Amino acid sequence: MASESGKLWGGRFVGAVDPIMEKFNASIAYDRHLWEVDVQGSKAYSRALEKAGLLTKAEMEQILRGLDKVAEEWTQGTFKLNPNDEDIHTANERRLKELIGETAGKLHTGRSRNDQVVTDLRLWMRQTCSTLSALLRDLISTMVDRAEAEHDVLFPGYTHLQRAQPIRWSHWILSHAVALTRDSERLLEVQKRINVLPLGSGAIAGNPLGVDRELLRAELNFGAITLNSMDATSERDFVAEFLFWASLCMTHLSRMAEDLILYGTKEFSFVQLSDAYSTGSSLMPQKKNPDSLELIRSKAGRVFGREDKEAVFEVSDTMSAVLQVATGIISTLQMPFRQAHEASGKAVFMAETKGVALNQLSLQELQTISPLFSGDVSRVWDYGHSVEQYSALGGTARSSVDWQIGQVRALLRAQQA
Amino acid sequence: MASESGKLWGGRFVGAVDPIMEKFNASIAYDRHLWEVDVQGSKAYSRALEKAGLLTKAEMEQILRGLDKVAEEWTQGTFKLNPNDEDIHTANERRLKELIGETAGKLHTGRSRNDQVVTDLRLWMRQTCSTLSALLRDLISTMVDRAEAEHDVLFPGYTHLQRAQPIRWSHWILSHAVALTRDSERLLEVQKRINVLPLGSGAIAGNPLGVDRELLRAELNFGAITLNSMDATSERDFVAEFLFWASLCMTHLSRMAEDLILYGTKEFSFVQLSDAYSTGSSLMPQKKNPDSLELIRSKAGRVFGREDKEAVFEVSDTMSAVLQVATGIISTLQMPFRQAHEASGKAVFMAETKGVALNQLSLQELQTISPLFSGDVSRVWDYGHSVEQYSALGGTARSSVDWQIGQVRALLRAQQA
Amino acid sequence: MASESGKLWGGRFVGAVDPIMEKFNASIAYDRHLWEVDVQGSKAYSRALEKAGLLTKAEMEQILRGLDKVAEEWTQGTFKLNPNDEDIHTANERRLKELIGETAGKLHTGRSRNDQVVTDLRLWMRQTCSTLSALLRDLISTMVDRAEAEHDVLFPGYTHLQRAQPIRWSHWILSHAVALTRDSERLLEVQKRINVLPLGSGAIAGNPLGVDRELLRAELNFGAITLNSMDATSERDFVAEFLFWASLCMTHLSRMAEDLILYGTKEFSFVQLSDAYSTGSSLMPQKKNPDSLELIRSKAGRVFGREDKEAVFEVSDTMSAVLQVATGIISTLQMPFRQAHEASGKAVFMAETKGVALNQLSLQELQTISPLFSGDVSRVWDYGHSVEQYSALGGTARSSVDWQIGQVRALLRAQQA
Amino acid sequence: MASESGKLWGGRFVGAVDPIMEKFNASIAYDRHLWEVDVQGSKAYSRALEKAGLLTKAEMEQILRGLDKVAEEWTQGTFKLNPNDEDIHTANERRLKELIGETAGKLHTGRSRNDQVVTDLRLWMRQTCSTLSALLRDLISTMVDRAEAEHDVLFPGYTHLQRAQPIRWSHWILSHAVALTRDSERLLEVQKRINVLPLGSGAIAGNPLGVDRELLRAELNFGAITLNSMDATSERDFVAEFLFWASLCMTHLSRMAEDLILYGTKEFSFVQLSDAYSTGSSLMPQKKNPDSLELIRSKAGRVFGREDKEAVFEVSDTMSAVLQVATGIISTLQMPFRQAHEASGKAVFMAETKGVALNQLSLQELQTISPLFSGDVSRVWDYGHSVEQYSALGGTARSSVDWQIGQVRALLRAQQA
Repeated sequence: MASESGKLWGGRFVGAVDPIMEKFNASIAYDRHLWEVDVQGSKAYSRALEKAGLLTKAEMEQILRGLDKVAEEWTQGTFKLNPNDEDIHTANERRLKELIGETAGKLHTGRSRNDQVVTDLRLWMRQTCSTLSALLRDLISTMVDRAEAEHDVLFPGYTHLQRAQPIRWSHWILSHAVALTRDSERLLEVQKRINVLPLGSGAIAGNPLGVDRELLRAELNFGAITLNSMDATSERDFVAEFLFWASLCMTHLSRMAEDLILYGTKEFSFVQLSDAYSTGSSLMPQKKNPDSLELIRSKAGRVFGREDKEAVFEVSDTMSAVLQVATGIISTLQMPFRQAHEASGKAVFMAETKGVALNQLSLQELQTISPLFSGDVSRVWDYGHSVEQYSALGGTARSSVDWQIGQVRALLRAQQA
Repeated sequence: MASESGKLWGGRFVGAVDPIMEKFNASIAYDRHLWEVDVQGSKAYSRALEKAGLLTKAEMEQILRGLDKVAEEWTQGTFKLNPNDEDIHTANERRLKELIGETAGKLHTGRSRNDQVVTDLRLWMRQTCSTLSALLRDLISTMVDRAEAEHDVLFPGYTHLQRAQPIRWSHWILSHAVALTRDSERLLEVQKRINVLPLGSGAIAGNPLGVDRELLRAELNFGAITLNSMDATSERDFVAEFLFWASLCMTHLSRMAEDLILYGTKEFSFVQLSDAYSTGSSLMPQKKNPDSLELIRSKAGRVFGREDKEAVFEVSDTMSAVLQVATGIISTLQMPFRQAHEASGKAVFMAETKGVALNQLSLQELQTISPLFSGDVSRVWDYGHSVEQYSALGGTARSSVDWQIGQVRALLRAQQA
Repeated sequence: MASESGKLWGGRFVGAVDPIMEKFNASIAYDRHLWEVDVQGSKAYSRALEKAGLLTKAEMEQILRGLDKVAEEWTQGTFKLNPNDEDIHTANERRLKELIGETAGKLHTGRSRNDQVVTDLRLWMRQTCSTLSALLRDLISTMVDRAEAEHDVLFPGYTHLQRAQPIRWSHWILSHAVALTRDSERLLEVQKRINVLPLGSGAIAGNPLGVDRELLRAELNFGAITLNSMDATSERDFVAEFLFWASLCMTHLSRMAEDLILYGTKEFSFVQLSDAYSTGSSLMPQKKNPDSLELIRSKAGRVFGREDKEAVFEVSDTMSAVLQVATGIISTLQMPFRQAHEASGKAVFMAETKGVALNQLSLQELQTISPLFSGDVSRVWDYGHSVEQYSALGGTARSSVDWQIGQVRALLRAQQA
Repeated sequence: MASESGKLWGGRFVGAVDPIMEKFNASIAYDRHLWEVDVQGSKAYSRALEKAGLLTKAEMEQILRGLDKVAEEWTQGTFKLNPNDEDIHTANERRLKELIGETAGKLHTGRSRNDQVVTDLRLWMRQTCSTLSALLRDLISTMVDRAEAEHDVLFPGYTHLQRAQPIRWSHWILSHAVALTRDSERLLEVQKRINVLPLGSGAIAGNPLGVDRELLRAELNFGAITLNSMDATSERDFVAEFLFWASLCMTHLSRMAEDLILYGTKEFSFVQLSDAYSTGSSLMPQKKNPDSLELIRSKAGRVFGREDKEAVFEVSDTMSAVLQVATGIISTLQMPFRQAHEASGKAVFMAETKGVALNQLSLQELQTISPLFSGDVSRVWDYGHSVEQYSALGGTARSSVDWQIGQVRALLRAQQA
């Protein structure tokens, strides 16, 4: 019939199944990331089937051994994909059947494809979020360490790209670190909602075979089970939440990158990017381009507005690379004009320590801090003095900066727990 | 100079300030929502200034009385906006000065416009989130009540718009209610991050006058203070989070609306929308359009992708209306074919209660349930029997549906606390 | 029935029509912009009804006079909206009936609300696009005039925010002007697709009364009529196209604004924004903030991703203001370091004119150009010489810049035709 | 120095170049699509260099032969990528050098990487747009053919998913075909703006070596050359336009798919999807899922909001597959209830042809049309009669439907020219 209509309306294809449909439908190109969690989920489900009396102990053991073999093939790079393997789940299933025969089919008793797909995705994302969480805290730690070590460096704070008020360099670092601690907190909340087991929800109405979902939860180490089978198999809030988290985190990293690009221009000349994170230009050899920072900024655009499952894999990779590059950049950044500005900061601290006014420090004392103190030291004074005024909590005075460092470190410790 | 260049390059405007700039820059059209929190914030700040010795007690009292008068004018609708009032903050400030004279200016000692704007926005959003939170829990409660009362009504569950498996009507309601409980949980998390005081951050470097931010926090009943002044005055994560929350919540309401639109078509005919939520068509009098449901669906589009402060006001209004309309729709929905499907559900329950198999019920017994039981009752059996199979937690069996109702109610109680 | 269910499920509302629905459904707040085209469309339709014999001549004239009176009330600000006026179409219709009685009802013979709404929207957008088209060409003209007058001013060209190659200031202006000419071209294409008449499409199946759509087209001066009534009443491609056009145009204006913000910083100091387009800061009096440029940049964000009819009105207003402000900014911009860089450009031109190498110009000759030529002129040479190398079409050499100016002007003339 | 700082701040990496940067920066995974146009562009540029006297004839021929060899390796699948090949351009360049030695380097005289990248992208997109244009016109043709052959089939037209007015099936097909003709028109406009040569723009200031851009244009068969070198190397309007085109086209295909999903449900039962475009469900064997239609709908989401170069490749592939699948679906779709509805349409036509009123046809005459005409034929009358009322241009009457078919075919012919 298809063939007749096909002829009648001049369609492009006549036959059983349009071959373009297969490629169109296949997700194997991106969901192979899931091979490991797919095996993990199947092992747990076969144990639950055995408990429910739907598999004999021997069948279960045969399936478990088969799944271990599948995993081994993936690990050793010997797993061969077939052209008919639509997704990772059919691929593993097909291979299991080749390895252990018809018993493999029993693994799907009462388990729908939706059940399996969403369980695998949650397992994988749980692991990924842990990794990203650790990388994010590494970055924050690096920033806080640097803020602490360089808290005497001063430079202009900007609003509307116009010089506004002198601030501590550490205050700038901490403004970005504090934003990232919110991302770290949000990621923990997302993880909590990812860590809920959908397995045992069937196609839509639930699992009809009395599988013990609490046992599955414990087996796979989830924090809770989903409440409603229709919601469980169809909802992807956790994907949307993860992608939103990534967008917001990238917004913060992107803003930091934008500041650093500007501070590194010839015109601003506050910082110098390490060679490890910049590239030259063949046509214009005088240039040293801040590629790493520009990439961070441009990757932000690629994270925004993604909505599908495929996005999860790409966005995860992007976030992992970006967090590592950002950590590298921050830890290797040079500040060319650091000495000049440090002088004033140290003088203010010396005056405080001695309990005298700044202008009571002698020139000798000042020169123990820096040879830059010579004739007219008034500009240095102004700078240093200005910064110390802002001592209310959250301000740029040294006492407040030190308080911030303590607060952020306490948050990191709490989030790591 | 402007005039010369103006002439030279044929520009459209010559003079001191281009009049189009004023309209371009003004936010008063939408931020007048903030009048009340602006007064509230200013009152707290004047108390802090007095504590810090920057206002005398008399000055503080003069300012507090003036602000009360401003609030009174807003409440009574007698506050007059000037054409030069750019935003709500300048409007209130201008009026205060008219009322109490030069003392009004002291209110801004060490407080930047950024400080004030972001504090006001957080105060307002804190209040709005509380309201939306309550409306959302009302909706969920209404859904759960209905799920409980009608747990014997069965109808087909769909996947890919194809009939898949029979389910309880309550199972369908709960699938949407469960999704909304996640929104309710997320809103509490957003509220927690909104409830942090930025006031006392100055323009960028912090507050230079030793204002006690902890006192301000207590005065305005915030949960914590911001850690870094640069971050505090520039970050709008909480706006992005709120808008994302609204997007996700609207996605859920939109999906429910889409199901109901379909279930209400002549072809499906499962439910009938109350007249209070539908409209007719003048050209086609036979029609009864599900306007309310379509509006919910289309409002979703208007919530997505908004990013600015103005969006907060519009999205808040939309969410408030949508949540109320959804509650109204759900509570007044009719199910025309309810009797037929209820019969099978009740029979299953009767069999269970009596401890007999369904086919052991006599025809007389069945007819006490419904006159629909007569000749061939086998289809009713299939339906009712099918549903009861899915008794694993989260499934559509009556025991599981009752468990879900209990779980969602427990969540609501916990979130209300 | 509603009331019973209402009681049963604890709904918030019991009665005939939920009052929140009215506000929820109303579009009058934003579509009042359409009053004029609504009258225009109705006048044309009443003429077509008379031609088709569905209105007598007397009835038509009564309707036309009534509509003129409605228009007069809008123009004079005496039109009073009722709380029940859902949208501009019902408002005008209600008022017409008050003015001329029952004959008003005949105006809707065979015309559906969809018919009317989409016709009005197309009429309004056609007018708006003409206005925006003219404003856009004004801006481009101003830019080209300035490019021509200042083609001797040189400054560094940047890539990756690093100095790359010296270019002419005019080359930079033209890079933005050329981008805007594409927007101007695209807007003409959008206008062509807006300028198609849907009226006479009825609710969905078409107009059943033999109304002459070709006559309607001529009456309302449209370029063509829509082909299919279902498509005509439901499609909003032209809205999506217009919003995309606005996004792309705002992207270009935003990039130009971003460059100018940077060039105006203390660190870059190439240009100075006119006072008419900047504002000061009360806390930091040394600052002059480029508010107009920042607003252009931020308005871009508000144009992106809007999708609804309401957006059309807001985006149109935004584009109109932004194009005028951009024209104002460009025409009043100062270049503080213009003299220094102009010198080298003029010297290159003098050498060319005299047919000698640059280094053959005598010091006296050079000093007729500028007193800046004194001791070491080699840096000036390098700059000027560098720029003149790029003489392939499209490059920054003066000949190429002049060619570009001619090309853009020719495009403007063609687009204006 | 990097190492010292690295140690100091606890950074994750110490050395020359952070290895994660390489993967981060590389685009080779997706831009290998460009290998052919990259060779094509380089061949044209080497000819232009020879004309400008920057290559000898022998050098040019050596380069041309080398590039042909590179192309041959790609065609035969023997081209080997190096881990250091960042993108397709460096890969081809590296291989050319291996094949012909140092002369290869001369190919880049005065050509920047930006020059080359954007030229390649335009060449590739020009080709892709031609292919998509042809596929789109195939789909429209198939739809119009089907509309013509089945113009007697009637069915209900819907608004708000409520039955509104009876229409011809062809009217529905044409409503979608007409929308697609606008996409076809827009794609031609995008192609026109893609077909502009940027090559010869250098890094930013232009080409300094007098390369003849008009010759390059003719060589690569572009319609025009870009006007400004800065704009030429940085603008990606054509990418944004192409992605917007794809979004709008997918919106149309997605809407058609949504209608067909609904019309194919058990409840609507108007059409039946060919087996070639549906799949079954293992757990629920009674189901036949409209996977192809759902994929079209879901692919729409993946096309929206993409913004980068990588998106171009993915979106192109998607559009190509979707257009072919849509053509297949439309050409093989069955209409189960076609006979019943066809009867009334044919009767109306018979009455028209005979010049009599419908109710003047005898029962015998009617039964020559269909055995369905027997007792009560009034409902058939109503249906058929209703449809024929809508004879104004664009309506669902047969004369208007035939006119639409003619109009769309004329548009297709014009667009193909």
